[in-house]
Amino acid sequence: MKVHGKNYRAVWMEGGHVVVIDQRLLPHKFKLLHLRNHRETAEAIRNMTIRGAGTIGATAAYGMAQAFLEDSSAEYIAKAYNTLVTTRPTAVDLKHALDRVLVTSGTARAAVAEAKRIADEYVTRMQQLAAVGLPLFKRGTRVLTHCNAGWLAIVDWGSATAPIYLAHRKKRNVFVWVDETRPRCQGAHLTSWELLQERVPHKVIADNAAGFYMRRGEVDLCIVGADRIAANGDVANKIGTYEKAVLAKENSIPFYVAAPSSTIDLHCPTGDKIPIEERDEKEVLFLAGKRITAPGARAGNPAFDVTPARYLTGIITERGIFKPSQMRKAGHG
Amino acid sequence: MKVHGKNYRAVWMEGGHVVVIDQRLLPHKFKLLHLRNHRETAEAIRNMTIRGAGTIGATAAYGMAQAFLEDSSAEYIAKAYNTLVTTRPTAVDLKHALDRVLVTSGTARAAVAEAKRIADEYVTRMQQLAAVGLPLFKRGTRVLTHCNAGWLAIVDWGSATAPIYLAHRKKRNVFVWVDETRPRCQGAHLTSWELLQERVPHKVIADNAAGFYMRRGEVDLCIVGADRIAANGDVANKIGTYEKAVLAKENSIPFYVAAPSSTIDLHCPTGDKIPIEERDEKEVLFLAGKRITAPGARAGNPAFDVTPARYLTGIITERGIFKPSQMRKAGHG
Repeated sequence: MKVHGKNYRAVWMEGGHVVVIDQRLLPHKFKLLHLRNHRETAEAIRNMTIRGAGTIGATAAYGMAQAFLEDSSAEYIAKAYNTLVTTRPTAVDLKHALDRVLVTSGTARAAVAEAKRIADEYVTRMQQLAAVGLPLFKRGTRVLTHCNAGWLAIVDWGSATAPIYLAHRKKRNVFVWVDETRPRCQGAHLTSWELLQERVPHKVIADNAAGFYMRRGEVDLCIVGADRIAANGDVANKIGTYEKAVLAKENSIPFYVAAPSSTIDLHCPTGDKIPIEERDEKEVLFLAGKRITAPGARAGNPAFDVTPARYLTGIITERGIFKPSQMRKAGHG
Repeated sequence: MKVHGKNYRAVWMEGGHVVVIDQRLLPHKFKLLHLRNHRETAEAIRNMTIRGAGTIGATAAYGMAQAFLEDSSAEYIAKAYNTLVTTRPTAVDLKHALDRVLVTSGTARAAVAEAKRIADEYVTRMQQLAAVGLPLFKRGTRVLTHCNAGWLAIVDWGSATAPIYLAHRKKRNVFVWVDETRPRCQGAHLTSWELLQERVPHKVIADNAAGFYMRRGEVDLCIVGADRIAANGDVANKIGTYEKAVLAKENSIPFYVAAPSSTIDLHCPTGDKIPIEERDEKEVLFLAGKRITAPGARAGNPAFDVTPARYLTGIITERGIFKPSQMRKAGHG
C-alpha cells in the first residue's frame, strides 16, 4: 500500500538485508530499518519494531533465509531457528513460516526464494480476501474497525482493511470509523496512518463512542481482524472486539471477522481454550509515556478477548465468506 | 472524603474566599486554590478547575455569595449573576443554585448562609443516596463504574461512589473496576485517585476491557452517574455509558444509575430530546498533551451518550431506588 504516494510492503528483502518499516515510530515518523543479519531481524520481532501475525511470519522467514546466507551448517541453522522462534512464543504464523523455510531449503538461494514465496502468499491471499469482501460494500458504506488489522500487520493490503482499500479504489465512497484501541492505540497510531496514506476518509473515535455511532445509525458494517479462530467459530482478537460485537448485534449491524484461513485453528475446539495474555499494567497506567493515574493505582490489562461465534455475521477469508459454524470447511484440514 | 487522611470537600468558603481543589492537576498534584472574588470563582468554573454538576452548583452559589460580600447593589449583583451563569451554559444545577442565592438574599450574610446550605444539601443527599444504595452490596461485591461520579463532582461522597464508600466503611470488602473513560480519562485521573485516598481496592481498566471482565463473571454490579435523566427514564451520561449498559444487560449484570433526584428532568420527555455536545476533536487526537495520530487525521468526539431506559435496572436517588418507569414519582413535580 502507499506511503507518501509510493508502494511499500511492511517487510521485504534487499540483498542480504531484511528491510522493515519501524512501526514503533508511527504515526510520527516513517523510517525504514535495514536489518543486516538474522540476529538483528530476530531482535526487530522481539522488540516490536514490526508486529501483526503475517508481518511477523514473513519477517521471520526472511530472517531464516538470512541465516542460510550467513552459514548453512546444520549447527548454525539450528541455533538461528531457535533464536527466531523464541522471539514471540505465542505467534503461530512465526513457527509455521520458519518451519517452511527450514524444510524446503537445502541452499541459501532456496531459502531466500521460499521466504519470498511466504511473503508473496500473504499478499495474494489478502488480495483474494479483498475481492471476497468487496460485495459487502455498497456506495457510501460506513464501516467500523478496531485495532490494526491493516497492511502493516500482514505484509500488504491487511485483513480487515483489504476489502476497505479495494472498495475505496473502486470509488464506492467508503468511510471508516477507527476505534483508537486503548491501551496500545493501534487504531489511532497505525490504522488511521494507513488510511491517511491511501486517502481513505475516516475518523478516529474513542472506543467509548463506537456504540454511540452505532445507535445513531451511522455505522453500516463492522470488520475486525482475528488472532485465532477456534473450530466452533469463537474469535480471539484485540481487547474490545467483544464489546463492539455485542453492540453491533444489539443494533442489528453486520459484524465480520476478516482473516487468512490459516488463522482458523481446528485443534482448538472453543474460544474458552484460548489463553488470554495479561500484559504489563503500565500500558494502562501510562499514556504516551506519561502517568495518567496516581502512584499506587493498579490496573488490569488483558490483551485479547474472545468473541463468541453467535455475535459474528461471518468470517471473511481468502476462500470465501463463511458462517462461524463452517470453520471445518473454511480451515485447513 | 479523605485526602492524605484528612477530610475535604471539593469546594467550601473561608472568610471571603472560595476554596477549591484544582481538579486539573489531579492525580499528579493536590493543590487548593483560594478564589478571592466572584470573578476568580467564575473563571475556575469556566476553565474546569472544578467540574461535576453538584460541585459546579455549589461553587457558583459561593461565587454569588462573594458578589454580595463585594457589593450588594442591584447593578453589581445583576452583573455578577450574568458572569457566573454564562460560565457553563448547559449546567442546570449552576443556574438553579444561582437563582436560589439571588432570591433568598437580602443581605451578604444571608447569601453566604444560603450558599453554604446549598453545598450542605448536596452532601446530605449524597449521604442519603449512599444509605439507599448500600443494600446492593453484599460481602465482596465487585462493582464497575465509568467516568467520575465521585465526591470531586458533587461536593462530597459522590453519586455513583457514595454507596461504594459506605459499603467500604461497613467493611463489605468491595472491589471497584474503574473504566479509564477516554477521551478525558476521568476514571483514571479522578475516580482512581479518590479511591486510593479512601483505600478502596480497585483496578483501572481500558474501556475496552469492561466487557471482558463482565463475560468472565468478575463484575457483580455496575453503578454510573447521570448528567440528565429524561421523564421516560432514558439517561444522558459520559460517552461510553451506553456501551457498558448494553454489555451489562447481555451478561445479566444489574446496571444502576446513581444521581440526586434533581437530575431527573421531567420537562424532557425522552433521551432523544437531549442535545449531545460534540467536543474538540483534539481530545481524541492528542493524549496527555501528545499527538497520537498522524497530522491530517480527524476525530469524532461526542461527550455524552444516551442510554435507553430498558437497559437500566434502577435509578438510585436520595429518595430511594426507582425503576426507570417511575421517574414522575422520583423526580420533583
